Amino acid sequence: MQMYSLMKQLFPICRSITGAGVRETLAILQAEHLSGLNITSVPSGTECLDWTVPPEWSISAARITDESGKTWVDFADNNLHLMGYSVPTDAWLTPAELDAHLYSLPDLPDAIPYVTSYYAPRWGFCVPHSLRERMRQHTGKFHAVIDSDLKDGALNYGELLIAGESNSEVLLSTYICHPSMANDNLSGPVAAVKLAKWLLERPRRLSYRVLFIPETIGSIVYLSRHLDALREHVVAGYVLTCCGDERTWSFLPSRRGDTLADRAARHVLKHMNVNVTEYSFLTRGSDERNWCSPLVDLPVASIMRSKYGTFPEYHTSMDDLSLVTPRGLMESFEAYRRCLEIFENNGVWTTACVGEPQLGKRGLYPTVSQVGSAEGRVRNIKNILSYCDGADLLTVADTIGVPFSECLEIVGVLEQAGLLARQNK
Amino acid sequence: MQMYSLMKQLFPICRSITGAGVRETLAILQAEHLSGLNITSVPSGTECLDWTVPPEWSISAARITDESGKTWVDFADNNLHLMGYSVPTDAWLTPAELDAHLYSLPDLPDAIPYVTSYYAPRWGFCVPHSLRERMRQHTGKFHAVIDSDLKDGALNYGELLIAGESNSEVLLSTYICHPSMANDNLSGPVAAVKLAKWLLERPRRLSYRVLFIPETIGSIVYLSRHLDALREHVVAGYVLTCCGDERTWSFLPSRRGDTLADRAARHVLKHMNVNVTEYSFLTRGSDERNWCSPLVDLPVASIMRSKYGTFPEYHTSMDDLSLVTPRGLMESFEAYRRCLEIFENNGVWTTACVGEPQLGKRGLYPTVSQVGSAEGRVRNIKNILSYCDGADLLTVADTIGVPFSECLEIVGVLEQAGLLARQNK
Amino acid sequence: MQMYSLMKQLFPICRSITGAGVRETLAILQAEHLSGLNITSVPSGTECLDWTVPPEWSISAARITDESGKTWVDFADNNLHLMGYSVPTDAWLTPAELDAHLYSLPDLPDAIPYVTSYYAPRWGFCVPHSLRERMRQHTGKFHAVIDSDLKDGALNYGELLIAGESNSEVLLSTYICHPSMANDNLSGPVAAVKLAKWLLERPRRLSYRVLFIPETIGSIVYLSRHLDALREHVVAGYVLTCCGDERTWSFLPSRRGDTLADRAARHVLKHMNVNVTEYSFLTRGSDERNWCSPLVDLPVASIMRSKYGTFPEYHTSMDDLSLVTPRGLMESFEAYRRCLEIFENNGVWTTACVGEPQLGKRGLYPTVSQVGSAEGRVRNIKNILSYCDGADLLTVADTIGVPFSECLEIVGVLEQAGLLARQNK
Repeated sequence: MQMYSLMKQLFPICRSITGAGVRETLAILQAEHLSGLNITSVPSGTECLDWTVPPEWSISAARITDESGKTWVDFADNNLHLMGYSVPTDAWLTPAELDAHLYSLPDLPDAIPYVTSYYAPRWGFCVPHSLRERMRQHTGKFHAVIDSDLKDGALNYGELLIAGESNSEVLLSTYICHPSMANDNLSGPVAAVKLAKWLLERPRRLSYRVLFIPETIGSIVYLSRHLDALREHVVAGYVLTCCGDERTWSFLPSRRGDTLADRAARHVLKHMNVNVTEYSFLTRGSDERNWCSPLVDLPVASIMRSKYGTFPEYHTSMDDLSLVTPRGLMESFEAYRRCLEIFENNGVWTTACVGEPQLGKRGLYPTVSQVGSAEGRVRNIKNILSYCDGADLLTVADTIGVPFSECLEIVGVLEQAGLLARQNK
Repeated sequence: MQMYSLMKQLFPICRSITGAGVRETLAILQAEHLSGLNITSVPSGTECLDWTVPPEWSISAARITDESGKTWVDFADNNLHLMGYSVPTDAWLTPAELDAHLYSLPDLPDAIPYVTSYYAPRWGFCVPHSLRERMRQHTGKFHAVIDSDLKDGALNYGELLIAGESNSEVLLSTYICHPSMANDNLSGPVAAVKLAKWLLERPRRLSYRVLFIPETIGSIVYLSRHLDALREHVVAGYVLTCCGDERTWSFLPSRRGDTLADRAARHVLKHMNVNVTEYSFLTRGSDERNWCSPLVDLPVASIMRSKYGTFPEYHTSMDDLSLVTPRGLMESFEAYRRCLEIFENNGVWTTACVGEPQLGKRGLYPTVSQVGSAEGRVRNIKNILSYCDGADLLTVADTIGVPFSECLEIVGVLEQAGLLARQNK
Repeated sequence: MQMYSLMKQLFPICRSITGAGVRETLAILQAEHLSGLNITSVPSGTECLDWTVPPEWSISAARITDESGKTWVDFADNNLHLMGYSVPTDAWLTPAELDAHLYSLPDLPDAIPYVTSYYAPRWGFCVPHSLRERMRQHTGKFHAVIDSDLKDGALNYGELLIAGESNSEVLLSTYICHPSMANDNLSGPVAAVKLAKWLLERPRRLSYRVLFIPETIGSIVYLSRHLDALREHVVAGYVLTCCGDERTWSFLPSRRGDTLADRAARHVLKHMNVNVTEYSFLTRGSDERNWCSPLVDLPVASIMRSKYGTFPEYHTSMDDLSLVTPRGLMESFEAYRRCLEIFENNGVWTTACVGEPQLGKRGLYPTVSQVGSAEGRVRNIKNILSYCDGADLLTVADTIGVPFSECLEIVGVLEQAGLLARQNK
């Protein structure tokens, strides 16, 4: 399964926090990739914690024309042209009157910004600033038509439960509510699909809960129904977003900052030998806002490439398929995959051996002792034996500065040799 | 009430650890500013902890003349000319004999040093080094006359208790035992008077104990009488001294270093955006020596401008009214005032809301969501909600990097909105 | 007793982990320096923890000659020429056949490397790389003769118990198994002898356990017999090795890293004002591998000069008597001696005095108070009084930045003055 191909397939769909676009997206994931995906429908008006599920928004067409019949802006060209949740309109306006309904970015004059107004009735068009300036010069009137609909319907989300031996769970949360944008946000769902498929192909110690939700309201709705289960079972989790470009790496820790999810992510990124900017939780912006809120307090962090809010194309039409690359996606998948491998395999190993064991008689130490003979793998073996004193293997790996995967392989050898035993698997 | 004017009024009085100067100073404070000031008198010879209250020192006149009748040094010109607690004398001496009783500073040849000998009988004159060198050249004898008196009397101190709702107290300690010097030390008492008047003008959650004492022996005497009350009630405190010049800011932490007094002071100084030198408690030099001693262990720190011992004019006649400025005093008052506002308003607020609340429906979040709409005040609101999980507001303010006063205002709004509630006020 | 002379005396002896060389070395120490040294003999084949005591190795002669009778390599010239634990041989070989039994260092072409094969039967010669290259050019055959013997015998070690008032112990461990090398390792045993003699000359609060053991197998054997005693009594310890050259200082902390042994060593090195490289425990290489292993976990660190593995001459014939100096040894002895003085004298002193005591009446404070009168020793006295609040004196010394010895002297004065009292000696 190619992440980039899936992204291309999903890109044109006009998604919002409710409506046909979300359903179409979830249907593709379920039909073509994750047959176990459970799609839930929550009626508009449902009270969820401090929120209410909003009406469902449908949009058929939207355009701005002039008296000559010329089309200035057409939703059919780019679904970002319409402010999300715009109410219907059909009005002739002067350029000045229309301008109050236009949104643009003076610093990025060719980009169409992404703007929404979910919870206040309003309509608007999002346009390149260069176009807006030309529209301001127009001498006649404009005809703004929005053929949209806001009525009781449903909010939809997808949920995939992947059972493992234990009911301890890893939460993988991503959102499917943005229209045609790539790094933020289709990179997240396609990486989540790839991770889910990877998990389904092998035996698992832990269970996994993979969520495809509309951002913010989706996590609120989910919390309103599953708070106790999440608090009881989730041992680590990530919000998957902005993981598709190749320009940099970003890490957003959980609110607590030192949970298993944080430690695994920092470990993996360190041993990928990449430059990483570690952001403060104060700069959070996605569903960790809810997953990590005081009374929920889940161990949820985020490994990203160019973080939302920090790259110039963020929330504009320039965050397109040229920004995200197959390699960028693959590297992000790999980083997350390594974190999952840590969760699957982490544990506490201890020794019953007083003093160092005799490694030589087990073929684990060179029989000729000379300068340098205790370096490299031999040194790692000794260091693992020395620090397996009650700490989990991830801590040992960090202490001795060796990748978890390499430590795990050595621990396996030492377990075989009877020198280490796993505690309370 | 102008701090600088009060300082000018108090400057000429010849103070020492006992005697008329202290009484005159306290009488002015009581009569003109703090009518509730309680002035206590402790008889000479009273045993206090490891110390004994010394005899009371009175001084009428002191001068050095020569055979020609020329006056070389006269206490009437500057009360620093006489070593504090000098015993009476009336003697004709050669220049060499007199020189053994002279004190001067070779590096500051025009300054009169401040020297005392409270606990060993001795007499001496303090002179500019340039004058001392001329006196050494004198060919005749000198006549040194000191008309002083050391006899049983009393040690006096002033104490103002400002009651609040709670019997938890803030200790504000300053000393009134130095003769004519400004930064060290009249800046401390005048700032303490201003803070006391400010406190008296408004309702108070906490109680305040403002002390005007002779340094060292005053805090010993006070501890000997109020140790249990101080240990039981004091939640924070400061020694007010050296807070009058404009040259720099200094912070001396308490012995423990992380008490509420320390945290508030560091917070306030940080958000005043000034350069601050944080000294080690190892360099302490005022009554925190007693307030923070092992068996007392109060949370008492000190915010200063140019710290005692670090500025060239320290303990000389050059620490005069030109060194201290109205602005320097006012800024120091402001720093301390902000600390008191923290003590008054700090507390623990928690939320009952699972997940982020919907701020938009309460007018606390913009209804149009676009790039940057979650910054500034909105970001601060969200960060406060996220970190109000059991920590006090000062900790939250430090965590999110926002001034306490701004956090407090937001907490008030969120309390009004039913989103935060104060725990155990 | 001169450490350097003893080293010269011991240098020529061919030591290994067993055999006559170890016995001869221990006999010299016992006969000439430490009459209380207890020499233990453990039979070959004894099972010790995960190990077995190996056969005893004896060596009479070893050489390589050629058909012309010319001697190319002779063990009689340098005992490093023979790989330790070489099995007997008497064979004519081509240069290529012989080369498989040669060990050399291309980067140090004039040095003979130190190589052993304790636990796998093998024979070999260690030669300068320049000689090896000439031997490869030789056209005839070589005659390799090793007159060695591997048979049941014993492993020997020396142990000196120096009793003190308390049964709390300091462990001083050094190894005596290397042939003719100086920094690694004769510097360790000679420093241990000097420290033991120094201890024997004075009263002691603590007890001391000084071990002269073959490295690795010696600490295993010792642990197999004394684990409980060590775990119960040892409060601090050091492995003495590589303490003879003058080039640098090295510190290897214990596994825990903050034990009394670590804190004392760091304190002493800091106040010696020398440059010290602090290594990670991950780079350990001597018997702390066993003393600090998880189920043993003793507080054992190591103060070294040029650490094993880090200096070019390490484990070669160039680590000879010219590398180590009397001054280098003496400075190392001094560093360790100061650590022992800390162990002997450390304790908790507290005051019963509320507030600062009046130092002046006890002659501990100048009676004239002027700028600078509270500095230096007076400041140290006050700082000690302020921090003696339950922390041990080493912690107080580190907090106030004053050498332990100076603090101890001041504490003595304050104890005399009734201002401090030692808790639970």
